[in-house]
Amino acid sequence: MEMSLARIAALVEGEVRGDPETLIRAAAPFDSADEAAVTFADKPALLKRIDECRAGAVVVPRTFDQPAAASLIRTDNPRLAFARIMELFYPRQRSFSGISPMAAIGRRFACGIDVVIGPGAFIGENVIIGNRVVIHPNAYIGDRVRIADDTEVYPNVSVLEGCIIGSRVILNAGTVIGSDGFGFTPDGIRHHKIPQVGIVQIDDDVEIGACNTIDRATFGRTWIQEGVKTDNHVHIAHNVTVGAHSIIVAKVGIAGSATIGKHVTIAGQAGIGGHIHIGDGAIVGPQAGVTRTVAPGHIVSGTPEMPHRLWLRVQQVIPRLPELKKQVAELEKRLKSLEAIGDDADA
Amino acid sequence: MEMSLARIAALVEGEVRGDPETLIRAAAPFDSADEAAVTFADKPALLKRIDECRAGAVVVPRTFDQPAAASLIRTDNPRLAFARIMELFYPRQRSFSGISPMAAIGRRFACGIDVVIGPGAFIGENVIIGNRVVIHPNAYIGDRVRIADDTEVYPNVSVLEGCIIGSRVILNAGTVIGSDGFGFTPDGIRHHKIPQVGIVQIDDDVEIGACNTIDRATFGRTWIQEGVKTDNHVHIAHNVTVGAHSIIVAKVGIAGSATIGKHVTIAGQAGIGGHIHIGDGAIVGPQAGVTRTVAPGHIVSGTPEMPHRLWLRVQQVIPRLPELKKQVAELEKRLKSLEAIGDDADA
Amino acid sequence: MEMSLARIAALVEGEVRGDPETLIRAAAPFDSADEAAVTFADKPALLKRIDECRAGAVVVPRTFDQPAAASLIRTDNPRLAFARIMELFYPRQRSFSGISPMAAIGRRFACGIDVVIGPGAFIGENVIIGNRVVIHPNAYIGDRVRIADDTEVYPNVSVLEGCIIGSRVILNAGTVIGSDGFGFTPDGIRHHKIPQVGIVQIDDDVEIGACNTIDRATFGRTWIQEGVKTDNHVHIAHNVTVGAHSIIVAKVGIAGSATIGKHVTIAGQAGIGGHIHIGDGAIVGPQAGVTRTVAPGHIVSGTPEMPHRLWLRVQQVIPRLPELKKQVAELEKRLKSLEAIGDDADA
Repeated sequence: MEMSLARIAALVEGEVRGDPETLIRAAAPFDSADEAAVTFADKPALLKRIDECRAGAVVVPRTFDQPAAASLIRTDNPRLAFARIMELFYPRQRSFSGISPMAAIGRRFACGIDVVIGPGAFIGENVIIGNRVVIHPNAYIGDRVRIADDTEVYPNVSVLEGCIIGSRVILNAGTVIGSDGFGFTPDGIRHHKIPQVGIVQIDDDVEIGACNTIDRATFGRTWIQEGVKTDNHVHIAHNVTVGAHSIIVAKVGIAGSATIGKHVTIAGQAGIGGHIHIGDGAIVGPQAGVTRTVAPGHIVSGTPEMPHRLWLRVQQVIPRLPELKKQVAELEKRLKSLEAIGDDADA
Repeated sequence: MEMSLARIAALVEGEVRGDPETLIRAAAPFDSADEAAVTFADKPALLKRIDECRAGAVVVPRTFDQPAAASLIRTDNPRLAFARIMELFYPRQRSFSGISPMAAIGRRFACGIDVVIGPGAFIGENVIIGNRVVIHPNAYIGDRVRIADDTEVYPNVSVLEGCIIGSRVILNAGTVIGSDGFGFTPDGIRHHKIPQVGIVQIDDDVEIGACNTIDRATFGRTWIQEGVKTDNHVHIAHNVTVGAHSIIVAKVGIAGSATIGKHVTIAGQAGIGGHIHIGDGAIVGPQAGVTRTVAPGHIVSGTPEMPHRLWLRVQQVIPRLPELKKQVAELEKRLKSLEAIGDDADA
Repeated sequence: MEMSLARIAALVEGEVRGDPETLIRAAAPFDSADEAAVTFADKPALLKRIDECRAGAVVVPRTFDQPAAASLIRTDNPRLAFARIMELFYPRQRSFSGISPMAAIGRRFACGIDVVIGPGAFIGENVIIGNRVVIHPNAYIGDRVRIADDTEVYPNVSVLEGCIIGSRVILNAGTVIGSDGFGFTPDGIRHHKIPQVGIVQIDDDVEIGACNTIDRATFGRTWIQEGVKTDNHVHIAHNVTVGAHSIIVAKVGIAGSATIGKHVTIAGQAGIGGHIHIGDGAIVGPQAGVTRTVAPGHIVSGTPEMPHRLWLRVQQVIPRLPELKKQVAELEKRLKSLEAIGDDADA
């Protein structure tokens, strides 16, 4: 694959400074790009070093107007432009196409055009799959599942019965969508299963990481709204809603019926308690344990969660606790001796 | 599916108040049930609102004797009764039946009656499977595994060689039973694998969540006793015992040779150290890190674990640590000036 | 299987004390071994109890020279010797052999000798697999993956395109190698995927636990160096390097571009922040949250991490915080009354 700077620039709505006929054959990071490659620089730290870069071209902010040895592509969002250029040079290929005779396909399958279903994949009954969907080998698609256009389901994923998956969704390998919610009721000795008869609904442009588990609702739906991205090993319990464009980092657990707002970020290994609400745009720090509602736009950290700025100060004190304790004991002693003087004086 | 109130009441050993011939076609939550649906109310907060409920019938405690517009089914445990009614109206169906020709079945397979094995499932050699067991597509059952009656193994589950699974067990999707315990011995530079030659034994009526990992014992067995329920992403290491009817919430990790008593609850993301014992009926709070034995019936929280009531008070202090530190510095200063006065007086 | 003490001793470079013709038929733990079994004792606590042991033979340190009723095998590293003896008596067997006609094999497959590929396994295009490799049923090996000799890939594992796996590697069930790194770039509203075009490279003698997720690099490689052992549910993000012979315990999460040195130990449920470096030989405690570089050989614990010895003292104070707070309030009161006396005296 080889492409002129002019064509690349057109693709990302950028303007070329340098020879538009320069041919580019790769995309690479700033420090390892060679003259056949395009790279990008958006932060001042990189832009300052632009003359150290051996890339054939550098994607820079439109406002960048300093002299540079390399050819430039000036654009509004260099990082986003570079992501698109990477897609161009490194399209994901796969070796299987069409519907494999080694896949198991259930009855009444409504299948879109240009669908790919790999060997060993299972499609249940009454499944509806949109155009250009890719079901990788050994994935499981349960009865009555609906998957919209251009969605990709990686190997060893399980999408259990009745779940609804939107367009351009990516479900990474090993993930489980629609496992039963953790619902039991005790009789004093045993725990009896409460049937989980709801579904999981995943809206458009969601990416779910590897080995996630998203439980179906008891009634109704567990709902992952459009544009949400989850990292690996995320657990989302029954009846949770995750609002549009939220980011859930690796190993987060969200307990039953919690509602996460839009544009929320939950950092790695944090836990969100059941029935908690996290307001739009809020940020939850790594390993935090959230036990109360978080207001929109707030940043919380720690267990139990507290304002992040307070947590930063608390973090300073924790390693000094032994010292603080000693200091208090010291004060106690000194105070006692002062009191003794007072007593003597009184006497 | 449509059923008279009388028949539903008989099923749950309840008594009808209202027209026993009323036909019910669904089960639904209190706030969304319509006149064709039955719902339940067991807590005072719901019972107080019973006249707001549009359900065709409400399952209530046997002791509930207030007037209500809706028909009632009075029973001992409304929540449990409702779970049974849900099973009635929403039986889980599956599109495959019998033993699929697309499953791989090993030699000397002892197979019960009415067994279902989906396409892409693998059954090793010398496997024994009881009556009415369901092995979903793409599940793996290793050599010499024994599975008792009415157990269900979901897609992409791996049950490795020699493990023993009881009756009415549910293994949710993506779970691994019988992976090797994490046992190595160093030679000063390298870590050498200690063969893990034990098994996992899972007793009757256990439900294991999605993407769990339960390691086989080095020798002997890792043992999940009857009625245990685990949520998603639980890790149980080699030689652990989890006592009957214990509840292990999502993302808990239990290290090697720990013994968990009966009727224990371990909340989400908690970690139990190796060789630790958790006494019967104990409760471990979310994200707790348990490093010492917990006595029967005790409730612990925090890292390191402490009595839960103490933890609640500690939680109050942690966010105030910066303040406390400042206060101590202040005291120090004031004390110093008092001491100076004393010194002056002495002088 | 039955073997003379002499032959067992030769295997582990040990010397027999007792009858070298004694026949051994099993290996078992110290307290359950019978006279047909060999066991081991390396720690003083066990060696002291050697006459309670009913084993046919006991593997002991070469320096052990006390009288004992049992036959002994004296060797340099009894635990390591015993691990080898276990391998001897309990070789792992499998019921499938050769390349199953129920496996899906892609074009241009370069396959070594004595390779085993189970039913339902998928092998993509241009895959290279070394001698004696075992691919278990329902595993997925993507296009252009290379796997060296004697490696074992357990059921329901996914190794995604282009990844490189060394010799004698074990990938436990349910694990995902080469899922996309969690890389997105925002446009103010949406998050756009940054293509992840690197790979995962796993060097020789690595064992990866069950349900791990190791993400491919954005560019270049995520690199697990030789001899690393990971427990279950470990997450390793894009562009991470884990140095040779490091041990990563269950449920650890390592964020993007972190570099872990050689011979590092990271205990269960700990989290390592992005771009952090952990020096060679360092140890990170359970549930720790590491936010800064850890120097070689250092031991850290807590969130945020601190020297482990300090953490031990901090742990003592945390449960006493309510008491400390009260004590400070008390001091405040007493100081106030002293100050009042001073004021009175002044007046």
